Amino acid sequence: MENGEHDIHGYDYGKAGVPSSPVTLEELQHFKISAGFTDDTERYLRMAGVVLAPQAPAIVQKWRSGIIAGIPHLARHSRAVNGDPRPGYLAATNLRFVQWIEDTCLRTYDQSWLNYQHEIALRHTSLKKNQTDGVESTPFVPLHDAVAFVAVMNQTIRPYLATQGHSEAEVEAMHAAWCASLQLQVALWLRSYATLANPTPEL
Amino acid sequence: MENGEHDIHGYDYGKAGVPSSPVTLEELQHFKISAGFTDDTERYLRMAGVVLAPQAPAIVQKWRSGIIAGIPHLARHSRAVNGDPRPGYLAATNLRFVQWIEDTCLRTYDQSWLNYQHEIALRHTSLKKNQTDGVESTPFVPLHDAVAFVAVMNQTIRPYLATQGHSEAEVEAMHAAWCASLQLQVALWLRSYATLANPTPEL
Ligand code: HEM
Ligand code: HEM
Repeated sequence: MENGEHDIHGYDYGKAGVPSSPVTLEELQHFKISAGFTDDTERYLRMAGVVLAPQAPAIVQKWRSGIIAGIPHLARHSRAVNGDPRPGYLAATNLRFVQWIEDTCLRTYDQSWLNYQHEIALRHTSLKKNQTDGVESTPFVPLHDAVAFVAVMNQTIRPYLATQGHSEAEVEAMHAAWCASLQLQVALWLRSYATLANPTPEL
Repeated sequence: MENGEHDIHGYDYGKAGVPSSPVTLEELQHFKISAGFTDDTERYLRMAGVVLAPQAPAIVQKWRSGIIAGIPHLARHSRAVNGDPRPGYLAATNLRFVQWIEDTCLRTYDQSWLNYQHEIALRHTSLKKNQTDGVESTPFVPLHDAVAFVAVMNQTIRPYLATQGHSEAEVEAMHAAWCASLQLQVALWLRSYATLANPTPEL
């Protein structure tokens, strides 16, 4: 969290205005157990955070400009409704996405983290998307697309974990920890999307 | 599909009574793209299927008896409402779970596959759980728990992929293909759960 998080527009981690997660800390413990998330997972996430933090801008660049930009049904969510590019919107959310990589690896998964997971999820829904940056774009990202894209994030992050000379076993353990965190986050996002007006097409 | 699928009680793949998926084949193409699921993924899934098929009973044993049985909030879904074991129920669903590993790797992802994904998802919900085996148990498996548990399945299946002397790169590619398929299936399950009466606590 050393890189000047307070300068990131719209990055509200730990701030008072962030609504409470629908998931309690006690439920989070169950979610962690379901995902096989242990103290060891946390330890390897920390190791991954040190490896990934300096590379985070490049990773987000790869995901957003290298992959999503080439997939029309995903790229449109960072564009104007008529399909025109909105580079300012993309850049602003990229910065917060970079910070999220660090947060995923280096934060304690406490009430603030839980609440901010909910906030991030809601910023993909009709309740909050576009508001932080004051743009007009698609009203929401369908959750199934975000969930499917996690497979791509998990696969493409692996080489970045192997750049700092760790043993194959350590890279493997860091990667497993990353994947466990992302699956945990997907489970939490489900609960956030489930708070929307129903029936919702956003799943 | 060589192991006598027709003898498996309640295994209804491709049968007329299976309801249609809420997801169209055209949408499935988009889901695949979101998950980075390519022809290569399919090729490595086939390779994985050959490796995993003979080990599938042991894998399911590990997941169900080795891991889930030790987690009370998951184990209860295969037990009576009062917590008594229901070994017959567990054994019957284990057989179908084994077959699912093969289907995941070796089936063509066509309309029948799509429909059966929906059926499997619904068998975790209040709409269909317990009916196939005529048991009384929990009314549903919360989707967030199943989704979180995918992290455990993905991590624990890796060693089984490495037992047949494939190169590290091949094992890696088979594993990535497996993970992409599971993330695709999670995305489909979301859509199945979203067809339930709302608001649903099952997410
Ligand atoms: C289909 C895949 C995805 C697309 C198209 C997508 C698109 C977007 C868009 C358009 C925003 C800006 C939201 C706003 O207007 O406030 C955003 C923000 C963000 N996304 Fe995603 N997203 C996807 C998946 C994910 C996933 C899987 C994660 C992490 C698990 C993620 C993490 C974030 C983060 C951290 C932000 C910044 C939140 C904020 O706006 O403050 N996204 N995403
Ligand atoms: C929290 C984790 C999970 C639990 C506790 C769980 C529990 C169960 C239970 C109780 C059944 C029997 C359903 C019935 O009464 O008909 C079942 C069936 C099955 N489950 Fe799961 N499940 C979990 C996750 C998953 C996941 C992630 C997958 C695959 C992606 C999966 C695949 C299957 C299959 C293929 C069957 C057989 C379907 C059938 O009953 O015909 N399960 N599971």
